[in-house]
Amino acid sequence: MTPTTTPTRVRIAVIGAGRIGASHAALLARRVPEADLVAVVDPRPGAAAEVAGSLGARASTSVEEVLADRDVDAVVISASSTVHHDLIVAAARAGKHIFCEKPAGMSLADIDDARRAAADAGVVLQVGFNRRFATDFAAAREAIDDGRIGEPRLLRSLTRDPGDGPADPDAVPLWTIFTQTLIHDFDTLNWLNPGARAVEVTAVGDALIHPEARERGHLDTAVVVIRYDNGAIATAEACFAAAYGYDVRGEVLGSRGMVTMGDGAVSSLRVHDTRGRTAATAHSDVELMRDAYTAELAELCHAVLEHRAPAVGADDAFAAFAIAQAAIDSVRSGGAAAVATQVPA
Amino acid sequence: MTPTTTPTRVRIAVIGAGRIGASHAALLARRVPEADLVAVVDPRPGAAAEVAGSLGARASTSVEEVLADRDVDAVVISASSTVHHDLIVAAARAGKHIFCEKPAGMSLADIDDARRAAADAGVVLQVGFNRRFATDFAAAREAIDDGRIGEPRLLRSLTRDPGDGPADPDAVPLWTIFTQTLIHDFDTLNWLNPGARAVEVTAVGDALIHPEARERGHLDTAVVVIRYDNGAIATAEACFAAAYGYDVRGEVLGSRGMVTMGDGAVSSLRVHDTRGRTAATAHSDVELMRDAYTAELAELCHAVLEHRAPAVGADDAFAAFAIAQAAIDSVRSGGAAAVATQVPA
Amino acid sequence: MTPTTTPTRVRIAVIGAGRIGASHAALLARRVPEADLVAVVDPRPGAAAEVAGSLGARASTSVEEVLADRDVDAVVISASSTVHHDLIVAAARAGKHIFCEKPAGMSLADIDDARRAAADAGVVLQVGFNRRFATDFAAAREAIDDGRIGEPRLLRSLTRDPGDGPADPDAVPLWTIFTQTLIHDFDTLNWLNPGARAVEVTAVGDALIHPEARERGHLDTAVVVIRYDNGAIATAEACFAAAYGYDVRGEVLGSRGMVTMGDGAVSSLRVHDTRGRTAATAHSDVELMRDAYTAELAELCHAVLEHRAPAVGADDAFAAFAIAQAAIDSVRSGGAAAVATQVPA
Amino acid sequence: MTPTTTPTRVRIAVIGAGRIGASHAALLARRVPEADLVAVVDPRPGAAAEVAGSLGARASTSVEEVLADRDVDAVVISASSTVHHDLIVAAARAGKHIFCEKPAGMSLADIDDARRAAADAGVVLQVGFNRRFATDFAAAREAIDDGRIGEPRLLRSLTRDPGDGPADPDAVPLWTIFTQTLIHDFDTLNWLNPGARAVEVTAVGDALIHPEARERGHLDTAVVVIRYDNGAIATAEACFAAAYGYDVRGEVLGSRGMVTMGDGAVSSLRVHDTRGRTAATAHSDVELMRDAYTAELAELCHAVLEHRAPAVGADDAFAAFAIAQAAIDSVRSGGAAAVATQVPA
Repeated sequence: MTPTTTPTRVRIAVIGAGRIGASHAALLARRVPEADLVAVVDPRPGAAAEVAGSLGARASTSVEEVLADRDVDAVVISASSTVHHDLIVAAARAGKHIFCEKPAGMSLADIDDARRAAADAGVVLQVGFNRRFATDFAAAREAIDDGRIGEPRLLRSLTRDPGDGPADPDAVPLWTIFTQTLIHDFDTLNWLNPGARAVEVTAVGDALIHPEARERGHLDTAVVVIRYDNGAIATAEACFAAAYGYDVRGEVLGSRGMVTMGDGAVSSLRVHDTRGRTAATAHSDVELMRDAYTAELAELCHAVLEHRAPAVGADDAFAAFAIAQAAIDSVRSGGAAAVATQVPA
Repeated sequence: MTPTTTPTRVRIAVIGAGRIGASHAALLARRVPEADLVAVVDPRPGAAAEVAGSLGARASTSVEEVLADRDVDAVVISASSTVHHDLIVAAARAGKHIFCEKPAGMSLADIDDARRAAADAGVVLQVGFNRRFATDFAAAREAIDDGRIGEPRLLRSLTRDPGDGPADPDAVPLWTIFTQTLIHDFDTLNWLNPGARAVEVTAVGDALIHPEARERGHLDTAVVVIRYDNGAIATAEACFAAAYGYDVRGEVLGSRGMVTMGDGAVSSLRVHDTRGRTAATAHSDVELMRDAYTAELAELCHAVLEHRAPAVGADDAFAAFAIAQAAIDSVRSGGAAAVATQVPA
Repeated sequence: MTPTTTPTRVRIAVIGAGRIGASHAALLARRVPEADLVAVVDPRPGAAAEVAGSLGARASTSVEEVLADRDVDAVVISASSTVHHDLIVAAARAGKHIFCEKPAGMSLADIDDARRAAADAGVVLQVGFNRRFATDFAAAREAIDDGRIGEPRLLRSLTRDPGDGPADPDAVPLWTIFTQTLIHDFDTLNWLNPGARAVEVTAVGDALIHPEARERGHLDTAVVVIRYDNGAIATAEACFAAAYGYDVRGEVLGSRGMVTMGDGAVSSLRVHDTRGRTAATAHSDVELMRDAYTAELAELCHAVLEHRAPAVGADDAFAAFAIAQAAIDSVRSGGAAAVATQVPA
Repeated sequence: MTPTTTPTRVRIAVIGAGRIGASHAALLARRVPEADLVAVVDPRPGAAAEVAGSLGARASTSVEEVLADRDVDAVVISASSTVHHDLIVAAARAGKHIFCEKPAGMSLADIDDARRAAADAGVVLQVGFNRRFATDFAAAREAIDDGRIGEPRLLRSLTRDPGDGPADPDAVPLWTIFTQTLIHDFDTLNWLNPGARAVEVTAVGDALIHPEARERGHLDTAVVVIRYDNGAIATAEACFAAAYGYDVRGEVLGSRGMVTMGDGAVSSLRVHDTRGRTAATAHSDVELMRDAYTAELAELCHAVLEHRAPAVGADDAFAAFAIAQAAIDSVRSGGAAAVATQVPA
């Protein structure tokens, strides 16, 4: 086999062998032909081995060791959000291309720093805004680009986690609903309103699943209203508990029509019985988003192989986090908050 | 009130105070402004009174008396099918306009005779093929007339009764599935294939709800394939038991597209819970077809007031029954059967 | 006919022969058997006559004359919103039962005054929040009452007018989007969150259809976030232009599930052609809400005949307008606004 | 990499580089991790090379050469149907495991012979009934197995090819609609009626797209009614032209409920504009069935690696073809035809 007849593959190490890391590793090994999963890294003894074992990859407990490995072209960072920034910077300095789960850092300064590190190193830095790769959302963006619904005026994006919510609300870091959950929706809204910039945010949030945690600042339910510089008004909505499953939806009303995305059904099967007609709904992100996860990991490989910027990069990560930060500011102040365009002084 | 400011109403007597008769009487009294329900007739003591009472109409046990009443313009016949023919003929001779539930008689000869009686008397004779008046089916016919799906090639119509089927299969007259149930589908298919004529029928049927009644000729499940003289092939399908409710659907594939009708949902409400996303389904014809029943009774009034033929008349009744008869012939012979165009010698 | 066998009817005059008045008059005359449409009133020469003519009612240009008519039991007020309060008070003083289109007045003080006038006169005062009578919304409330979705946490209600929006934005009174359009959604949200009270409102609005009218305070697009005293957070959303038709939807996420209402399709017909599978959507409120309008007018009659309060009354009108007022306050202040529970001093 | 840490892969050669062969080759190379695509074979110069080139496989024009290759474990036969039998027998004799597109031969005798050859050689023989691997159909079978709809009574399966039909009807071999198209539906119906056996078939067919080819025996539209030994009645329906796209649907009515499968929508995106609400539909089998094709090819690998029979084998191929043969008999005779259980003498 010669390079002229077969595509080169990207040799990838997954850092972080938790739930999403395990999913990413499996998709890379089994569904992304342009990827070679070479290593799975996790400091916890056994965690990396468990994931790597059945996928033909080696396990490691040392990020340093993997970043020093010349046979690793890229890393997929699915570790705790608190170390995203440090891992991006370290990987960039090691010359590795990078896919990082959202958020790319825990502050605008960190994300800006990570962006700079990747730029300086000349490596690809892609952020895990998977919704852009979901078939329905991608087709919506295409319809918008084609002018089928005209200029966007009202947008909506929502995320609801399946089940009854976190068992222990205090185990959820403050502001998680904005920086970890709704950040998906913030990016989705930015992306579905092409060329526009978010300027002002008003957010309300509450502890409705765990009211007893309210006084400690816990938020498990939130609505965020975003104003864009093209006049469009967007609503982002999240809740940590949806009894009927993992719910991801989008909607854009434009001057000439509307697109809606996300019906939750796992297939076209309908069961009709004495209760009526029922569609089964997805009960996990890994189930609902499997194809989107696959597509975003393939995009990493394509960006690396084609020496180009990825479809979703550090600027998008910054823009989405700026809305999350403004949402936090709004909850704190009780009023509208401006969306930063650069790292606050 | 003078004729110039108010529309003339049609004074109507309902003959037969069973389930459908009671529904028709209530719709005439409450939802058809062009109708005056003046009487409800039923030989059973009390039956007519029970229906007529709350609707402001008088009750009668004598058809003769009502037919002799000069203040009755029209009759709605919802008595047993076995007396449809006799009632049509008697009403026609009495100069009353007529709406008769399907079938218009129990043989092609009887239907032809009823048709002649109405024609001779110059009265309107409308037959209760309600599906033509359902919003979705009516819009489908309109789309076909507009050429939106081109020339019909494959058609489907089905009827399934809600619940577990008849408690006593032997209480159901032989061939009911063709002459009472599928006759709706036969008319629907004829009507959705405008200008074409059914020429050949192949039918299979069985006793699947009550297998023990099979040897006595009971049929509770049937599939009928109809060939039309424009080449179109239609399937009509019925079952006396659908656990999920009353199911009426239609489908026409044409050379340029397809129309589908009937989704069974009673409203746009969807309940999402741990079982998934559920739509409630209709559990009776009176529930699913209320608007269609109303519209067909209004059509009777309009035809009478406008001195014109009704949208669905005796020729349609004959054509649909001819398919039912051919289905019976096909089950008897085990092969294809021709569709009669006139009363067999 | 004696009162014991037939229901008494309510003799009704419609005041205001505009688009909705004409629709109400026709429904009263033709689809509400408990109603007798006796008069249609409109100061414009010809307007009342045109509507009344074909419906067998008399036309009048004088409200006073109709209110003095002893043969009028109730009035349906569908005149301009600016005169709702005065008409309610006058009708109440004349001892007439009242159905009034929303809003019941143009200020909380006026609505409170109208409420008092009706109470003092002992007449029924029903307000035209039709969504409560739509099949899907009514079934949603029933599901909520049955505990099927648990305690409400996140709600959404939206209204979008069909077409391209008002030709002349300056012909639309200021704050119309809150007091006339979204007031439907405010009532719907209150009603779908039974027992809870709206406490705080944050609203954003803009002129997106007519940006040139923005500086004159015109709003054609708005999003309102409402916090309830049970913690629930609701979003109400409106736009004066939806190219695809009249759009009314609702959604309630509760602790055990979700209900969604409003799919816009006019029937179950689907046309499948080279463009895909298409459902026709409703293009007017009169089309989408015909059954709901009928049901709310029937409710007026039932309340009158049964000497009871209507399903939706002056307190509901006050509560919904209090949210509209808070939305106005929020737009003016740029921050959150409290929802009044009584007329501000 | 050692066998203990990585699954063994199956080395596969694709025979036939047409449209489906190219799709299968790409899926094997890119989406089935258990497969190694090692060769693509096609007698046409260039055809094999074009497919093999970008997939890292070698191209060959000689079946013999590939069957003699010790580094080939299995073959995927996607050549012309007329050579399926010969290729199966040759591959079996060469000790290769086999996946063959439907039908497995052009007569019951040939399929029986192929079955025997595979059995004698002890190789896996899987037949390409892909619908069993589609998510919705697979979930339907699961629901049936779980007893959710009770005992099957009425079944329906249909296949409609996208577009306007074959340009030259005479290029389509006689009986193709039964042996190539509806054979999918025949297998689907057998499989969705577990444990039952088809006993009698009545078929009608016509040339509706190309009426001028009717006299030469061309059939482009057909309806087949199948009776099973458990009483269930099934309808299979096909047309070579559906303007709206590739249409594959299924439906099973049982004693306790119904399952329906196949809604044609390519995603949950809905575009709402002046025409209404539109869902894009799939326009090719490769688009609609990509995941099902992937799953059936993975099943081949799993069967080979686990030394077990495949989920769909030669007996299923025989049973489905027996219905196709009975359909041909029925069209020829104009009456019902028995379904063979063994090769006719």
